[in-house]
This record gives sequence, structure tokens and C-alpha cells, in this order.
Amino acid sequence: MMMWRVPELLPFLALGLFLGHVAADPDMLQDVCVADLSSAVKVNGFPCKVAFNASDFSTDVIAKPGPTNNTMGSLVTAANVLKVPGLNTLGVSLSRIDYAPGGLNPPHTHPRATEIVFILEGELEVGFISTANVLVSKTIKQGEVFVFPRGLVHFQKNNGNVPAAIIAAFNSQLPGTQSIPATLFACTPAVPDNVLTKAFQIGTKEVEKIKSRLAPKK
Amino acid sequence: MMMWRVPELLPFLALGLFLGHVAADPDMLQDVCVADLSSAVKVNGFPCKVAFNASDFSTDVIAKPGPTNNTMGSLVTAANVLKVPGLNTLGVSLSRIDYAPGGLNPPHTHPRATEIVFILEGELEVGFISTANVLVSKTIKQGEVFVFPRGLVHFQKNNGNVPAAIIAAFNSQLPGTQSIPATLFACTPAVPDNVLTKAFQIGTKEVEKIKSRLAPKK
Amino acid sequence: MMMWRVPELLPFLALGLFLGHVAADPDMLQDVCVADLSSAVKVNGFPCKVAFNASDFSTDVIAKPGPTNNTMGSLVTAANVLKVPGLNTLGVSLSRIDYAPGGLNPPHTHPRATEIVFILEGELEVGFISTANVLVSKTIKQGEVFVFPRGLVHFQKNNGNVPAAIIAAFNSQLPGTQSIPATLFACTPAVPDNVLTKAFQIGTKEVEKIKSRLAPKK
Amino acid sequence: MMMWRVPELLPFLALGLFLGHVAADPDMLQDVCVADLSSAVKVNGFPCKVAFNASDFSTDVIAKPGPTNNTMGSLVTAANVLKVPGLNTLGVSLSRIDYAPGGLNPPHTHPRATEIVFILEGELEVGFISTANVLVSKTIKQGEVFVFPRGLVHFQKNNGNVPAAIIAAFNSQLPGTQSIPATLFACTPAVPDNVLTKAFQIGTKEVEKIKSRLAPKK
Amino acid sequence: MMMWRVPELLPFLALGLFLGHVAADPDMLQDVCVADLSSAVKVNGFPCKVAFNASDFSTDVIAKPGPTNNTMGSLVTAANVLKVPGLNTLGVSLSRIDYAPGGLNPPHTHPRATEIVFILEGELEVGFISTANVLVSKTIKQGEVFVFPRGLVHFQKNNGNVPAAIIAAFNSQLPGTQSIPATLFACTPAVPDNVLTKAFQIGTKEVEKIKSRLAPKK
Amino acid sequence: MMMWRVPELLPFLALGLFLGHVAADPDMLQDVCVADLSSAVKVNGFPCKVAFNASDFSTDVIAKPGPTNNTMGSLVTAANVLKVPGLNTLGVSLSRIDYAPGGLNPPHTHPRATEIVFILEGELEVGFISTANVLVSKTIKQGEVFVFPRGLVHFQKNNGNVPAAIIAAFNSQLPGTQSIPATLFACTPAVPDNVLTKAFQIGTKEVEKIKSRLAPKK
Repeated sequence: MMMWRVPELLPFLALGLFLGHVAADPDMLQDVCVADLSSAVKVNGFPCKVAFNASDFSTDVIAKPGPTNNTMGSLVTAANVLKVPGLNTLGVSLSRIDYAPGGLNPPHTHPRATEIVFILEGELEVGFISTANVLVSKTIKQGEVFVFPRGLVHFQKNNGNVPAAIIAAFNSQLPGTQSIPATLFACTPAVPDNVLTKAFQIGTKEVEKIKSRLAPKK
Repeated sequence: MMMWRVPELLPFLALGLFLGHVAADPDMLQDVCVADLSSAVKVNGFPCKVAFNASDFSTDVIAKPGPTNNTMGSLVTAANVLKVPGLNTLGVSLSRIDYAPGGLNPPHTHPRATEIVFILEGELEVGFISTANVLVSKTIKQGEVFVFPRGLVHFQKNNGNVPAAIIAAFNSQLPGTQSIPATLFACTPAVPDNVLTKAFQIGTKEVEKIKSRLAPKK
Repeated sequence: MMMWRVPELLPFLALGLFLGHVAADPDMLQDVCVADLSSAVKVNGFPCKVAFNASDFSTDVIAKPGPTNNTMGSLVTAANVLKVPGLNTLGVSLSRIDYAPGGLNPPHTHPRATEIVFILEGELEVGFISTANVLVSKTIKQGEVFVFPRGLVHFQKNNGNVPAAIIAAFNSQLPGTQSIPATLFACTPAVPDNVLTKAFQIGTKEVEKIKSRLAPKK
Repeated sequence: MMMWRVPELLPFLALGLFLGHVAADPDMLQDVCVADLSSAVKVNGFPCKVAFNASDFSTDVIAKPGPTNNTMGSLVTAANVLKVPGLNTLGVSLSRIDYAPGGLNPPHTHPRATEIVFILEGELEVGFISTANVLVSKTIKQGEVFVFPRGLVHFQKNNGNVPAAIIAAFNSQLPGTQSIPATLFACTPAVPDNVLTKAFQIGTKEVEKIKSRLAPKK
Repeated sequence: MMMWRVPELLPFLALGLFLGHVAADPDMLQDVCVADLSSAVKVNGFPCKVAFNASDFSTDVIAKPGPTNNTMGSLVTAANVLKVPGLNTLGVSLSRIDYAPGGLNPPHTHPRATEIVFILEGELEVGFISTANVLVSKTIKQGEVFVFPRGLVHFQKNNGNVPAAIIAAFNSQLPGTQSIPATLFACTPAVPDNVLTKAFQIGTKEVEKIKSRLAPKK
Repeated sequence: MMMWRVPELLPFLALGLFLGHVAADPDMLQDVCVADLSSAVKVNGFPCKVAFNASDFSTDVIAKPGPTNNTMGSLVTAANVLKVPGLNTLGVSLSRIDYAPGGLNPPHTHPRATEIVFILEGELEVGFISTANVLVSKTIKQGEVFVFPRGLVHFQKNNGNVPAAIIAAFNSQLPGTQSIPATLFACTPAVPDNVLTKAFQIGTKEVEKIKSRLAPKK
């Protein structure tokens, strides 16, 4: 096969000795940059770990359904760079979303990604709204696929009598989520009431009621 | 100066003859791609016009304040690629936003851009909410600058007694806007009531009331 | 100075009249650019259709397992932009891969994407090789996730006695696949024998044997 | 609203305790990466600060006109990432440029950005030159907008009797500026005279004269 | 719901008939997008040809030195997308530059690319100037390599007694060149004299002299 | 030329004093980010050095032919970011490849770059294979150019009686190489035999023979 001039290898050998028991080849950092999630240095994304192994590219956090006995009747479990450090710089991640019967993943956006979903089980009413305020929606069932374009408000609702579950893929290692109701009515500090009353054309009392119902559980 | 081999110029000369009286140098399309806004061919962004002039890079649509006597007491006027075709492929645009006293630019997102604003006159309470549901807000006055990070929900409110106005710059030729109240309560077809009642924990009657108040004016 | 030529404007005026009552908002093309798969104009990706609906963002082509009674004992079914035109410009797609017991998805690359997989059923030995010739491999089972970094050679092997299946997500609307054995031994025209004999340090007879076994089935 | 499994929150809680008095949510670093301008680690752009607040997204440095009693009769004041650390990784910035009557912002390039300007007051002759050596120029007045495409040489000249001022927006957090006369005739070390004499077809004496007039003021 | 309208499909059907016997595999357009240099549709870059062959990825235009008996004593010959249509969308190109003894490639920028050069023969003084007005320069000889960062002003000068030649590589299919002297003193229409006199602090007479010497040869 | 307000310069002056004898202007880090190859912090690419000079943008490692008396009869010598630290973040690099008569650069991919080559001497049979398994090949000789699209398998073979050499340019500072035979048959740990026998439809004995012949020389 191709041969490499020995002097080019020397720095790597030297580095290997210097790093002592580090197993990984530093050259590999150019193919991947496994997140050093606890680095004191913060950058856009994460700095890279020097040593890593196959576990850094794998997880079982989305193997099982999560509990959906909450207000919305749904649960998002993410397999993003925070769980799969090997995803750092690679621009992709997964989530699993479980829905109780009647469960809703409320209108939300992902500021940094398009989402494509595959229905593992059950049936969902899904939709996104364009910037021209056109709703594009459809009912999809097990094995079907649907796309939510980057940054647009979208939702999924389980109108069936049985649980539903999806695998969602994103073209970002950490797509971020802004669940609209919680973003506006449950953030800290609170959005001023006079912004919300004017925006939604409702009274202060109604704003306070929504805020109390959406407040994070203690 | 640098000289070019004649054979390299020949195709351009030939093209010039073929196009007849078209004045523009096709080489220039590589520096810019002035939007052909009415092309029958649709691509990501716009195809390029063959002929253009300095007017394609200019506009006066944001020179004057717009009327703010509407429900929200604010008006956005855009100088994006639809008004300045020369912006096509260049990744930047401006808007002017005017606010009546008490006026609000309601919570909204730009799916494709970060926004940076400069206050032309007046004083505004501005804020954005992170995906960790933290509100970052500030009151800024004439001559001050504020940034709304890409994709995050944000708003501006004129709490003063005089009009306010800003110039907003975006790193997109067409950043898009999703005004949250209209996106959820005034789109076509409508978001199902059972999505909105569950999301905001309110009754159908309240949903209908918001929908009626936010419905587009006939 | 370059000037608008009137004849260039005529088609746009005509088009405007012709469109008349068309419901779709051309503004929406800026949120999405649904692929016009049969356009005579070819661009990087695809031109956009003028009219589209929710079906353009959905497919059921990966709902069911595909037949795996082939030489490799595996089958890839893609839900990419060619099947889901709404994916155009959005940078993501899915595939389903089915494996018979003993089935192999042979070593291959995706020139344009990182891949992240979720095991629907069964158990697979998976691995990728870095540019430093380090194999990173692991056995993963139902519900687990694994990542194959952009452009690197990787494979999946079903060493179990039951079928296996995965959902694979890519950060490209059309990631492309180069299955190494077919790329080198079954392309048209053929890679010269003296390239393959020297590359793999085998005889012409062995090269010919591999070529005959990997030749596309008539 | 959506609920999150408690174990996922634990690392953040732990991190919060460990960081002691740090106010900001580390999750927020994924929405923004506020520049740590004094970090010892240098990267493309800047590393991120752990704690930040609304002031990091704001500045008043361009609120007032700057002094224009200099050789060129103009002054650029930047509101880029060095003044607004929250701009880091967000790809946008502003400048204010003031012009005395007769003032000139001499021909220059921004290696990393397109520029779009809004005239605050006065009137300017503006222009850019394409790589085909075509000048695209126009006189614009208060409230008008003009675009200077990425990387191309451009200038603004106040031919009026009153001061002028603009707000310039860039699609880069730090667009950089190469003012052509200073770049060529006032850099350190100096560009060799025989490069400048041949380039501009002038004598050494003329080169020296330009150099002396453009030399930075002590 | 938006639906396909038949009249819009007609032109495509017609065109499909016209193309008829086109042999090339459309799947391949996803690996490459060979420029259709004569397409009536203009886009950012070029639309793709339907049929292509190996010649589209090759050229011999930079095989031989070009004539350097011109004012600057140098000649640039480009092997960019205009000569190698296969380069379209691939983000790279080459040029060959020949220098007579004493020849100069005058200070210039490439708005869209970094440049890396390899010296084929001879010796050159090369340099670039940073936005902080720092000159980074070096004399390099046969076999040596030098880098000119994206967008920055740079030059090469042959101070030797023998010809020199380089191969220059760019990370753009069409990097564009703004040769500073010609950009400012030989564009059409001309940059106003009062811009140039103030910028370079010289008299109108000197501006006119430079303009006459740099004017394109008839 | 343009003047800057003194307070803006103060932080830089202060930083200069603090850094002591460091010569480079920290502002320059925004034009370039010269790789600090030995930094303890690892990021995507490399952190930047604070001080640098013209040597960081130059190398002579590809000035001379390298020895080609190895199994493949070819040698790749890279002038990438590991040899030219100034290339960091600039997206381009060069390699020199030498071929003995009969020498082969075996089928390989660059996961992160398109390659364009210029033939310094000799004649080569070159080719790439598309994802549709179409071989695009050509014999090119001294002075000719050929392109290998991003990520696709390609090779070069010297069928002549004299040595050949090329300069290869990549649009990546570190394109990475996966030489297919070594990737599959000489990695560590080894790819399981049952993957290779099924993939290439050969016996274990043949797999072992290839592995032994391609094993790295001790």
C-alpha cells in the first residue's frame, strides 16, 4: 500500500509517548472530534477528547419508551451530542418521542435543524406552518415518514386510543427546542404580561391562568 | 495590468454577439446573481437576471415610517431580496420597524437569520428567550444596538409615549418571520382546536376568542 | 448602464395573469423548495415545484421490510429526496435497511453525509474505519444507536439467527452510497485488471473471479 | 408542557453547583456562544464565556457621530464582536460611518462580508467595482439602501455641503476592512517600491510621496 | 390544499420529448453537476448538463507557458469552471501564472477564495497584507509552497533574471480577481477623479497619468 | 486614511504589553488562525497561535520527489495544515505524488475534499467511479489537469516507462485519505474475515493472503 515518509510519523510517535497511556491516534481527531463534555474551554459545539472508543458513538437512551403521564401526555428523549459525544461536529442526532393516547407534542421550533420522523407505532396527526401562515398537515401511521422544515413551528398529536412513538432525526448535533407555550408562558424571568395580553389579545387574568398551568412542576 | 489570452475571451465575445444588445458582462454573474424575481424556473433563492443596473442594489421602501394604526401598533417594512434583487445569494437584508406608543412587535422567530437592530428613535423593551427558557431582555434607546440570535423567539415593545423606530439587519436575503400568535391562531387551514387547548391549557371558547381577534382583516 | 429590457418583463406579466386564483403563496418557496423531479433544468439539488401539498413531505416506502434473498443478504430502501420531494434543500433523509440472518451491508461510504442508525429489531456488528486505519466497532441491539462519521468506510453485519432492521438517518437529502466491492469490481466500464491486481496484491484470475461473482444480476 | 426525565437534568444541576455563583444556564451556550474576548485559548472566532447577561448583546458605541476632522473626512465606528461579544458565532454586525462635507470612505474591501447600508442623513455617491472592472454606482440619500457584494472594492463619497451618516450591516461578526490606499502604501513592513511603481506605472518619487501622506499619524 | 396544475407541466413534458435519446444517468448528477455553460437559465454557479464525459473534468490550457510580453510582465491562465465544466459545485480550481524576469502579478484580491501556490520554476517574492496592515512576505523558490488567505490583498514579483512560473490552487470554482490598479484606474465607467485624488492624496494630473498607462490596450 | 477612535485601540495596546515580546497583531487572528499544532486544547481543526510569521504559510516538503521503491510504486507527500500551520481554517492544501514506472496510487477516497491534479511530468491513467458505478477515466499527460469529485473512489496509474509526478490540490486543510485496500485489509483491529469474504465473495484463505501482503512493514 502507500508508504509514508518516516519523518512525518515522528511527531505522532512523540506525541504518543508524551500522552502516556492515551490509546487513541491523534490523527483520528481529523475524522471525528469526540466531544469533551466537561472541558473548561467552551467553544461553538465542544472541544475534542484526546482518547475515545466505540461507546462514544453509541447510546441506549432511546431504546425504551419513557413515561408519558404528564400534562402534555408526551415525552421527548434525546440522543444528541450530550448523550453521544461522538456526534460532535458531525451534524446529526436522533430523538425518540412517546405519546400517550391523546398526547400532544405542542407547537415548537428547532432553531438549528430540519426534522424527519419515522413512526415506530401508532398514528399521529402532524403539521407545520409556513411563514406565509399556511398549515401543511397529514395523518401518518406506523412506518410512514414526515418532514418538518428547518425553524418552522410544528406539532404532533396522538388522536388514537393506543400509544404512539416516533424516531426523529435532525441535521444538527444539538437542534434545540422552543416549545412555544412554555417559551412564552413559563420562562424565567417571565415575559411581561403586557406583551402577552397584546400579542394574544387576551386579558391579564387569562395570561396568569396559562402561566400557572404551564409552570414547571416543583 | 494582467493580460488575458485572447482565446479565453472568445466565448464571451461570441456570447455577446448572440445576446445582441445585452450590455451586462456575463462574467459579472459570478460576483453577483441579481434575482430574476419573475423567472418561471424556481430554485433555492432565485435564478439570476442577465441584465441589471445599480437600481437593483438599492431601494427607498424603508425611507419613511409606515402606518402603525393596527391591532399591534407596529409595522414591519422589509428591504429584502423581493425589494432589492441584487441581494440574491449575498446573505443579508434590512427591515424598518415602526412602533406607535404602546406598540408591540409580538413574539416571533426568523427561521433563517440572526437579527441585529439599531434604534432610530424612541425607546424599546426588547428580549429573546433561550431554548433553556431563559428570558434575556433590556430597555434600549436611540442609537443603541441589540442582537436576537438565530431562530430564537423574541419581541420588541414600545412602553414610551412617543413613536419608536428601528433598522433591523439580518444575515439572510429573506429571513422569514413566524409571528407566534398569528402562526398558531390565524393560519389557513386552522390549527385544530384540540392542539391549542392542550398546548395552552385553555378552553375551546378561549381558543376561538383568540382566533377571532387575530383573524386577518378583510 | 444596463437597463431592463421590456420583452424580459412580458413573461412575468403574463404569468401573473395566468396564475390568477392560484392558492399557493410563492413566499412559501423560501421556507421550502419542493423538488420538481422532472424539471428539464438541472441544478445542484433540484429546482422547486410551484404547487405542492403535504404528500410531498411524506412517504411509506420504508414502512415494510424489503426482500433480503440476495447475495449479500441485505436490502437498503431509501426515503431520500427522490421519494420525498419536500426534502429538497433541507439537508436530511432516511433509509431502512433489512438484514437476513448472516446478512451483510458490505463496506461502503456515503460521500456526502454522516449516518446515525437506530436498531428496529435484531442485533448487528457495526464498525467504521478511520483514515488512520483504526477500526471502531461494536455490537448493538434493538433500540441502540450508532454513528458513522461523514465519508468513512463502514459496514453492518447480522451475526444472529433472526432478521435485523435499522432506520438510518443522514444529514443530506441524497447522501449517495459507494459500496466498495461493487464500486471496484462491478462498475461500467470496468476498473482495469492491473489496477486491481496491484491494489489488492492478487492475480488476474482472482480479480476476474470476484468480478464475475459481483456482476449485476441480469 | 413537555417533561424531561430527571436523570438528564442531573449533570446540569451538578454543574450549576460546581460553578458556584455563575448565573447563566450552560445549556444556553448552545443557542449562543458569547465571546470570551480575553481567553488565553484562541480559536476561529472566540471561545465562549460561561456567564453572560443582556449587556453582552447590546452596545451604545455607534449612538453618536464620531469626529471626522481627519485626512479622509470620515470615520468608521464598529459595533462588531469586539464590542458586542454576544455576536460571536452569529454571523452579523453593524458599523456607523460619519462623513464630513467632502468626506470619503476610500476604496476598500471586506474580505469576509457583504455590506448593506441605510443612509441616516445626508447624501452619498456610492459604488462598487466588479471583477470584470465594471463600476456600479449611484447617488443615494436619506432613508435609501445600497448593497456592496462580498469582497468587492467599493467606496462612499459625500459630495454635499452637509455631514452624512450611515448604518452599515455585515453578514460577519468581524468583517475586516482593507482600505486600499493604506493597505498598499502604509503597511508595515512596507510593500517594496518596485512592486508599487510597476503596479501603478508611476515613479519611485511618486510612491514615496503617497506613502508619506498616508503614513499613520504619530 | 395545493395541487399540481396541468398547464404548468406542459412545458416540461414538451422539453422531455425534445431531449429524447439523452443517455446519461441522472443519478450521477448528484455526485457531480457538470456546468452547462451555455444554459439560458442563470443560477449561482451553473445549471448542470444532462450528458457529460471524462473530458469535462480535464483541460490542457495550463500545460504551456503563456506570453509575458505585456506591461506587467506576467500572465494568468485559468483552469476554472469556464474551462473545466466538471468543476461546477465542487469548490476548487487551478491557475498557471508565468512571469518574465522582473515580471509582477500586481496587488490583487480573490473575493471568493484562499490561494495556495507551488513554484514550478524560478524564484518569487510573495506577500499578503492583513487587515491590520501587516505585510507577511517571503522569497520562495522552485518546489516551495505559499498561502494567500481568503480575500486579502497579495502580490508576486519575479526579481530574478530568469522566467518563473507557478501553479495556483483556489478553493472556489471561479475565485474571481480584482487587480487593484486596474480595478481603480481602468474600470468602466471610471471611478471619479475626486475619489482617487483624495484616496491616494495625489493630484488629478497624476490620476489621469495612471489611468492612461493602465487603460486596456485597443 | 480612515481614522479609529483611540479608545478602541486601547485593549490591543494593553494586550500587546501583556503579551510581552509577541510580535503579531492579535487583530490578525481574524484574517488567519495559524494552527497551534501542539495546543493541549483540541478543537475541530486547530486552535490559533498568538504569534506567527511568514514561514507558517510556507513549506518545502513537496519540493523534491520522494522514494517510490515500495509495494505500490508510489508515494504521497502532503503539504497540509500539519506542515503549513497557516492553512488552518483556510480550506485548502496541496500534495505531491510520485510514481515509479508501473506505480499505482490505489483506489482511495478523500472524505473531506474534492481533488484537482496538475501533471508535473510523465503520463497517468486516472479515473473516478460515481455512486451509480460508472467509471470516468482518461489518460492525461504533462501539463494536463483532472478532477476527482468530493468523496468518490479514484485512482492514478503510471502505465509508462518513466516516472510520473503530480501536484494535487484539495479544498480542505486536511482532506484525509482512505486507501481502500489498506482500509479494509490492513486496519487495526482487523475487519472480521466473515465481513470480507462475504463482501468480496472470496474465501478466508484469500482474505488472509491479501491481509498478509498489505500488512504494514515492520
